Amino acid sequence: MIRTLYWENNRLFLLDQTKLPHTIEYVECRTYVDVIDGIKTMKVRGAPAIGVSAAYGMALGELAGEDLNVIGDEIKSARPTAVNLFWAVDKVLDLVSRGKSAVDVAIEMEKDDVAINKKIGEYGNSVIDDNDTILTHCNAGALACAGYGTALGVIRAAHEANKNIDVICDETRPVLQGARLSVFEMQQENIPVRLIVDGAAGHMMQKGEVDKVIIGADRVAKDGVANKIGSLMVALAAKRYDIPFYVAAPMSTFDFENNIFDTIIEQRLPEEVLCINGKYISKKQTNVENPAFDIVESDLITGIITEEGIKKPL
Amino acid sequence: MIRTLYWENNRLFLLDQTKLPHTIEYVECRTYVDVIDGIKTMKVRGAPAIGVSAAYGMALGELAGEDLNVIGDEIKSARPTAVNLFWAVDKVLDLVSRGKSAVDVAIEMEKDDVAINKKIGEYGNSVIDDNDTILTHCNAGALACAGYGTALGVIRAAHEANKNIDVICDETRPVLQGARLSVFEMQQENIPVRLIVDGAAGHMMQKGEVDKVIIGADRVAKDGVANKIGSLMVALAAKRYDIPFYVAAPMSTFDFENNIFDTIIEQRLPEEVLCINGKYISKKQTNVENPAFDIVESDLITGIITEEGIKKPL
Repeated sequence: MIRTLYWENNRLFLLDQTKLPHTIEYVECRTYVDVIDGIKTMKVRGAPAIGVSAAYGMALGELAGEDLNVIGDEIKSARPTAVNLFWAVDKVLDLVSRGKSAVDVAIEMEKDDVAINKKIGEYGNSVIDDNDTILTHCNAGALACAGYGTALGVIRAAHEANKNIDVICDETRPVLQGARLSVFEMQQENIPVRLIVDGAAGHMMQKGEVDKVIIGADRVAKDGVANKIGSLMVALAAKRYDIPFYVAAPMSTFDFENNIFDTIIEQRLPEEVLCINGKYISKKQTNVENPAFDIVESDLITGIITEEGIKKPL
Repeated sequence: MIRTLYWENNRLFLLDQTKLPHTIEYVECRTYVDVIDGIKTMKVRGAPAIGVSAAYGMALGELAGEDLNVIGDEIKSARPTAVNLFWAVDKVLDLVSRGKSAVDVAIEMEKDDVAINKKIGEYGNSVIDDNDTILTHCNAGALACAGYGTALGVIRAAHEANKNIDVICDETRPVLQGARLSVFEMQQENIPVRLIVDGAAGHMMQKGEVDKVIIGADRVAKDGVANKIGSLMVALAAKRYDIPFYVAAPMSTFDFENNIFDTIIEQRLPEEVLCINGKYISKKQTNVENPAFDIVESDLITGIITEEGIKKPL
């Protein structure tokens, strides 16, 4: 399995996911500022992977003698929606205050992330039947985590348990993580996969071609889940056609204090929508709304698959 | 307003819509085969525009001394879903059998189409309120017709009636007719317009930013409407958030004989999905499902705006 990131000689190496699936290239982060840049430009993305990267950012800061409280705030501001980012920075600060080194905390967090995902896979596998077709949106795969993946981790676990499953990936505009990353991961593991445009998910469900939907989450809170833009419409179609709709996410994605509708929905640059592969699809000055996430309301969610078991929505 | 097509010196000229919005270029059709090619390759698209083009294809066949029954069947097979294509060919055959020339029938059909659309606009305007934000999917505009448009015709009529409206266009993958054509039409008329990815429509409705949805139709039949892929998911979101969902279509789009689920949903080439602006988003050999249309079920539709008034779904 391709590595999302690794730590070597006190440097963090991030797989540049903007270049997948065509080019496999790692960027070297020598400072915490490099990590912030990697998160902002989505070289690394996916809530758990952002969390682990943030912890390594803190580690780089520690090695450079920075004030961890100050750079912690800076790192937290890299992206506003994924709760794991805040969780990871706070965890490093807490454990450092108790005498641990940030480097050790980050290394441990990376290992834990994979272990947690395998646990999620184990629980998730219990709801997957032989011959299921599973639809997923965006990439909640190994590439969204330190490894293995959450939603795709469940699919991996079912595949490893010799269940005959196949996968439908929404391409997931505007950044196309479904087409570029999830399809790529499935192909690497020889799990049968088909690509569709986002608008086709409802049609596939209406035709009875989807047995389960599993997505990841950037935040789980009271009343719902925040995840990649388009998740809501997939959930509405699943509800309409009585298809179980699961969210797979580690407990670090849970925000017990806030209502999900208080989530800040990151608005990204118009160019993500307007300009595809170097060519504009509308005039350059066209007005664009580009929310990166949306909210899936609790009544649309069958269960949230975590490392502690499958939970009902909050 | 830019012309979708025109007839000059016994030739049909089709605006090559695959090159919009960057290049305005007409292709000359000297034979009915050129027209079939124009329809198949989506140089001309949109149910009413396909119908008028088909009639001109019959006219070109007539001028060349072809057997109109034979070429009628060939023209009908250009695309399987839009009912106007069949309607137009049959109408030409019928009127020719009564002594009219196909050329005259086609010219009349082109004029009628614009008049019908203005009537649709008039009826549609009655459901539009001042300050409405209207979301539309794909392009049911002047470019989908001989002129004026169906869904965008309603928007034009409201704008001409001095209502302060603004428009949100889904980009409409895979062929991006929303981004390339609908946004372009609105910008040409100075109607405020914003572009979103298809997955963002639900989010905009959940936030209360959409007052009405209006789309076109490729076929209206018992139990629902067939329209561009993604329409179903837009309709489901509109239903969820109690937003009126209208279909605007001429009576020639109505198929009173069949159930909508008997509609043949055209599957188009994988490359439409896989390759955007010359670059592959997944590996070239990736399996793709590329249905061009989906079915919006009747209970999701508030009304169907026709030249004969606003009808309840069949």
